[in-house]
Amino acid sequence: MAELDERTRAALDGTYFWTLATVNPDGTAQSTVVWVTTRDGKILVNSAVGRKKPPNLARNPSVAPAWFDPEAPYGPIQIQGHVVESYTGDQAEADIDALAKKYIGEDVYPWRKEGESRISFLIEPTHVQS
Amino acid sequence: MAELDERTRAALDGTYFWTLATVNPDGTAQSTVVWVTTRDGKILVNSAVGRKKPPNLARNPSVAPAWFDPEAPYGPIQIQGHVVESYTGDQAEADIDALAKKYIGEDVYPWRKEGESRISFLIEPTHVQS
Repeated sequence: MAELDERTRAALDGTYFWTLATVNPDGTAQSTVVWVTTRDGKILVNSAVGRKKPPNLARNPSVAPAWFDPEAPYGPIQIQGHVVESYTGDQAEADIDALAKKYIGEDVYPWRKEGESRISFLIEPTHVQS
Repeated sequence: MAELDERTRAALDGTYFWTLATVNPDGTAQSTVVWVTTRDGKILVNSAVGRKKPPNLARNPSVAPAWFDPEAPYGPIQIQGHVVESYTGDQAEADIDALAKKYIGEDVYPWRKEGESRISFLIEPTHVQS
């Protein structure tokens, strides 16, 4: 497991958007824009059951989060890592609410769809280029 | 080949940074922050021989460029596509200079390393979510 340096941690703990690359079942690249946070030195992202990321990550846990400072885009942060834990249920629902609080100041994530189940992924970074 | 809608074209032709996901030889995800432009409805990116992207793309031409508006990050643009052409030589060197002109107003790319060969990739979008 690679350490998250101070700059990377600030970029993850701030209200910045990141992109997250995963690999599709057919071996092609996929990338989405995500909210992120950290927990115990790992990177936490949250998705919804039924989207592309959950089956992609169940099949191939590798991910590549990337970030640049919109105010000073040179010197991006490019991470490689893999999902070491994923879960649905109360904690995953609480995680998306916490992300909504962090990013948009709302206690409850306002864009939950009827019947939607949230799913969280904890990512262990294996290589951090910052 | 998918059409680039007007908003996507503006995001590619502006001075925005994008992230570009590729797949490593071991099947893991990789992502880098890139300058981009368009040519004949395709997306052009430029790299240097010796970096990770050229061998990744020679082995697996699939890419996923992603973008969000830093001023209004909801409604990201997430593209899937594949490299249909790559080349080194005079045109690739001219391409990086044109990108430097576009992004930083310099006629000649100022960060070329001694002996560096540039390589361009033309990406055909197959799916555009905008």
